[in-house]
Amino acid sequence: MRAVTCTAGALEVVELPAARPERGQVVLDVLNCGICGSDLHARYHADELAGVAAATGYSGAMRSHQSVVMGHEFCGEVADYGPGTRKRWRPGTRVVAMPLRRAAGASHLTGLSEAAPGGYAEQVVVEESLTFEVPNGLSPQVAALTEPMAVAWHAVRRSEIGKKDTAIVIGCGPIGLAVIGMLAARGVRHIIASDYSPARRALAATLGAHEVVNPSDSSPYSDLAERGHLVATPALLDLAIDGMRTLRRLPVPWEPLWRVAERAGAIDPKAPVIFECVGVPGVIDSIVAAAPIRSRIVVVGVCMDVDHFRPALAINKEIDLRFALGYLPIEFRDTLHMLAVGKVDAAPLITGTVGLDGVSEAFDALSDPERHAKILVDPTS
Amino acid sequence: MRAVTCTAGALEVVELPAARPERGQVVLDVLNCGICGSDLHARYHADELAGVAAATGYSGAMRSHQSVVMGHEFCGEVADYGPGTRKRWRPGTRVVAMPLRRAAGASHLTGLSEAAPGGYAEQVVVEESLTFEVPNGLSPQVAALTEPMAVAWHAVRRSEIGKKDTAIVIGCGPIGLAVIGMLAARGVRHIIASDYSPARRALAATLGAHEVVNPSDSSPYSDLAERGHLVATPALLDLAIDGMRTLRRLPVPWEPLWRVAERAGAIDPKAPVIFECVGVPGVIDSIVAAAPIRSRIVVVGVCMDVDHFRPALAINKEIDLRFALGYLPIEFRDTLHMLAVGKVDAAPLITGTVGLDGVSEAFDALSDPERHAKILVDPTS
Repeated sequence: MRAVTCTAGALEVVELPAARPERGQVVLDVLNCGICGSDLHARYHADELAGVAAATGYSGAMRSHQSVVMGHEFCGEVADYGPGTRKRWRPGTRVVAMPLRRAAGASHLTGLSEAAPGGYAEQVVVEESLTFEVPNGLSPQVAALTEPMAVAWHAVRRSEIGKKDTAIVIGCGPIGLAVIGMLAARGVRHIIASDYSPARRALAATLGAHEVVNPSDSSPYSDLAERGHLVATPALLDLAIDGMRTLRRLPVPWEPLWRVAERAGAIDPKAPVIFECVGVPGVIDSIVAAAPIRSRIVVVGVCMDVDHFRPALAINKEIDLRFALGYLPIEFRDTLHMLAVGKVDAAPLITGTVGLDGVSEAFDALSDPERHAKILVDPTS
Repeated sequence: MRAVTCTAGALEVVELPAARPERGQVVLDVLNCGICGSDLHARYHADELAGVAAATGYSGAMRSHQSVVMGHEFCGEVADYGPGTRKRWRPGTRVVAMPLRRAAGASHLTGLSEAAPGGYAEQVVVEESLTFEVPNGLSPQVAALTEPMAVAWHAVRRSEIGKKDTAIVIGCGPIGLAVIGMLAARGVRHIIASDYSPARRALAATLGAHEVVNPSDSSPYSDLAERGHLVATPALLDLAIDGMRTLRRLPVPWEPLWRVAERAGAIDPKAPVIFECVGVPGVIDSIVAAAPIRSRIVVVGVCMDVDHFRPALAINKEIDLRFALGYLPIEFRDTLHMLAVGKVDAAPLITGTVGLDGVSEAFDALSDPERHAKILVDPTS
């Protein structure tokens, strides 16, 4: 089969042996595979990524000297299946699958490990247990985006954001845009998006942002005080003294009232939720410095360098910093169904499609935020 | 009245005018006032602390050139009250109060601002709305510890820890010890404490730690895998593939089962909760490096310096980093009652008592963890 390998940063189309399923696995003919920002990074910085993965116990991540077939956002049709599968798959069944599989007795990240070749290829091997039939006639182009949209859905779920909370999305690359789409799908009523690129700000509005900010001109945090968020310590101190004066003057016991007020977020104020979707050093610290008291920051952008921050500032604001990665199988499945029923529309993310021969050029083109958000690879073209 | 001022790091006993209550305020004769670690820090680094406070909008924090009466952990007896109080206070009523008051029209941190002199004095002014009568004959020594114990209770509540979760407390200074006491009061069944000092490890066991570790000899994280925590990425990958194989083979729809399993923490594993009670640079990063997947780290120790960490590592483990400061009025009040009914015993924390003349010496003595945890000031002695 034809596939694109990455070897020491060089992407080339090669002929590889046909994919073979092991026990409980399925072979797919790839219809579409999205190019992910982590692939762009892994192309030149595989060894750094592998080092971090090894630090958390995973030694199978791709190394720069290996020849690896990348691609972990794919939709395909069932071509074959191995022994021990739960069902007999009808050839041509359109599916998506989590990019995770057994190979040589261990679990590996498909498309990010030499042991588990990915979707920049005519075929890919997947685990039957992580495979989901594409419902409702959803196009294979949009179905291929199940994976990045699931990353965003996981981040939104991990944020525990409520519909009435304020969401601020810093950085509108593909993941920031996916987060905006999923926040809108979640029903969040006030989504502020921030990006330097006009094209990406336009996409942010399309995906569902209610307010779009160019950080060169204005701050995404500017009108939070008007919206009832506590932007500085004195407001918190006043709240304690005055809130207690009011409560204790009531002719009824104040404690039950306090509990009610606390649950409603009137006393322990509800935090705005800020999604860090940039992933370069200094961004977390700059968000901590600008964010209101009690902000919850969900870090989705992957910063590979050692970063700095000021714990005393984070403590003074009681910041909650939640790092998010990947998704649960149920979140992947739910994302597929949200796409299929139209609860979220990922189609605007797709700004181009190439064949296997165009992968290398597409990697380069993705560095320009004005031209591209997500490019799909179509190995059949 | 006699009081201890701090001026450019020098602590001296001086004669000050008697305290006068403003509208809605009460004057207390101080019975006991605890010396807090933040006072030790503010003695020599007030300007840095004030800089951080100013960065979050509070400009009233003490500066090194000012003469400030510190002390914010106090118990006293009502001596007088101002106009507009809710009730007529019987002189001698024993109370504790949150160290927060109006002065010159603004809210200030009592004992950490020139505008609001603190409890290292014969008298202190408090807000009636933040004043709570000491119940149940609780001693003024232990009642004075309501404030630091409330800091710990807030941190425990903010951690959202459950009784079945594992708690790890890094650093057993006064706040680490208070956190251990409050975790035990919360009913947490597995509390691991870590400190280099034998005296503090002994106190940790007294306060309720089930396991006490000297980090020179062994790791507080060593037996977490046996307790079902995911300590490395491969276990998480296996869980996805195998968990889904099992679920999808069941003769009933797997989705409701998934939801049940997820709620029970069987699929999205419950995180151990780690309390950072040290507050020096590098500790947060070292905890992130050693902690299991999905750990929740509650930062209670205040690190004043710029710190470094590796976001990629925190992301790979999906760390949740919650910074905690202070408490809500209801938490302060609940802490007082927990002390009064014996749900938590703070008495072991008290390792010494001095008069106003002994404050300077006590500050120096507190630097030795083998000798002291908490020293109380008794201005009546």
